[in-house]
Amino acid sequence: MKERQREGLDNGPQMPEQVQVVEVGPRDGLQAEKTLIPTELKIELINRLTAAGIQRIEAASFVSPKWVPQMADGAAVMAGISRAEGVSYSALTPNMRGLEAAIESKVDEVVIFGAASEAFSVRNINCSIAESIERFIPVARAAKQAGLHLRGSISCSFGCPYQGEVPVNSVVDMVKRLRDVGCDEIDIADTIGVGTAHHVQRVVQAAAREFPLASLAGHFHDTYGQALANIFAALQVGMSIFHSSVAGLGGCPYAKGATGNVATEDVVYLLHSLGVETGVDLEAVVAAGELVSQRMGKEYGARAGRALIARKAVV
Amino acid sequence: MKERQREGLDNGPQMPEQVQVVEVGPRDGLQAEKTLIPTELKIELINRLTAAGIQRIEAASFVSPKWVPQMADGAAVMAGISRAEGVSYSALTPNMRGLEAAIESKVDEVVIFGAASEAFSVRNINCSIAESIERFIPVARAAKQAGLHLRGSISCSFGCPYQGEVPVNSVVDMVKRLRDVGCDEIDIADTIGVGTAHHVQRVVQAAAREFPLASLAGHFHDTYGQALANIFAALQVGMSIFHSSVAGLGGCPYAKGATGNVATEDVVYLLHSLGVETGVDLEAVVAAGELVSQRMGKEYGARAGRALIARKAVV
Repeated sequence: MKERQREGLDNGPQMPEQVQVVEVGPRDGLQAEKTLIPTELKIELINRLTAAGIQRIEAASFVSPKWVPQMADGAAVMAGISRAEGVSYSALTPNMRGLEAAIESKVDEVVIFGAASEAFSVRNINCSIAESIERFIPVARAAKQAGLHLRGSISCSFGCPYQGEVPVNSVVDMVKRLRDVGCDEIDIADTIGVGTAHHVQRVVQAAAREFPLASLAGHFHDTYGQALANIFAALQVGMSIFHSSVAGLGGCPYAKGATGNVATEDVVYLLHSLGVETGVDLEAVVAAGELVSQRMGKEYGARAGRALIARKAVV
Repeated sequence: MKERQREGLDNGPQMPEQVQVVEVGPRDGLQAEKTLIPTELKIELINRLTAAGIQRIEAASFVSPKWVPQMADGAAVMAGISRAEGVSYSALTPNMRGLEAAIESKVDEVVIFGAASEAFSVRNINCSIAESIERFIPVARAAKQAGLHLRGSISCSFGCPYQGEVPVNSVVDMVKRLRDVGCDEIDIADTIGVGTAHHVQRVVQAAAREFPLASLAGHFHDTYGQALANIFAALQVGMSIFHSSVAGLGGCPYAKGATGNVATEDVVYLLHSLGVETGVDLEAVVAAGELVSQRMGKEYGARAGRALIARKAVV
């Protein structure tokens, strides 16, 4: 903040001094991979991200292995990682069974989820938005009783592949519902990456009228190339928690080769250049991203990461 | 602007209502390609971009074919295109010989260039910044006498591969020099893509103290994934001319597979979503980008373009 104040360019009083980077690569980044990733590689990735100073890591999803075979080893992953003091490891828990498994695995934080689009809710989880929230009530209650941090994630907050536009009010409705079931934190997720800067600011500001801004997280996909601009725009209205995926892991299901999750490397590069503290060692994240890409036989997809590696090679 | 005002979210009074998109794909995007692109394909690309409503197209570079073999057919390209009323076709003119060829080819606009970094100037064009400006004086004078729009481009405005950081004052010095030799417009170019949002705002604001803001252009590379965030930041301080390359043509010379020029598709998607007028038909640009990528045997690299095509396929 000092740097910005000195330059007289803080882009409004709301830009945070610190940001929490929530690393979703090990879960959101890997879950759609068809080839099963060895449990050891998942553990190594999480350990490296922990060592890189990332304070929050989405590590597992306790869904039925029939739905998401890639996430079947959640308990083994949680048992295998080296936990660091102060780091929160989270998991998706779609139902009571998932929550029980998550508790058994000693996660710090669980995630329940719903869509801001009725059409997406019906097609993706086979029930209306209202029904999905009803089903999560016992999960939320049990999670709170177990002393877990409870996160609610709102997919399709900016657009839906089935219904198209999603009104800001639909997102606000979901924020209220997730607040009312007891969520400590709410994710505004742009599942298909159609959101743009002013739209993001409108949604964040509207959500913040119903829920503490400091506990709203932005989850942006780079499908249309907008993710970094959206994060910069969200920072300007005071958002201070962002999801990202190391190496940009996690493709868009609608387009082969299209980018999905925004890369942690690009986000951290932006944040540090703005003088925003993250506690993250960017070089260590780049090394983790390069390693996991190599082991998965993929081209390393984080632009800032590739550029930093190339720069080193030149110098 | 109406949309933004109604929503009460115009991000400051300076965001422009209209933006000029300067398409640099046919020149900056292609010049480093090792395989010679057929003149007919260059002509078809320029014609399609013209038909898509782009008002300004960088079409050629009248440099020695020994330096840049890909640009050797500049005269044939300029002779072959179907010009549209009101569209400006530009070319790089490094010296008097290039300027004469450009005038003969009836370009509307010529570009002279220099670096904000001494180290880059010496390594790239083999002379100091001061010498490079001296050499451009007769070119600039003759261009103005011929009634051409004269553009001056400042490379390495945010960082240099050899000297590292580039102070804001070095950019301002170049702005003054290019202004003093008679430039009508000045490009602030991030040659290696290291610039980030606040840095961009600082440089644009400093440059605008020496040259009309309405005639400053932003040329951003996506090497570190920052280009769209930089454009959004530059819009917020009133910049209204941006360079981009259809399909994101033009790789970074420092990293294989790394992105270079920001894609026109991503930029137009952002601008339209902000309610900023461009006069550009995004679908037509996507079709042009897909076509040229296919003909060049490359994966189509514009994220918004790929996503729009995929969306159509889904619906």
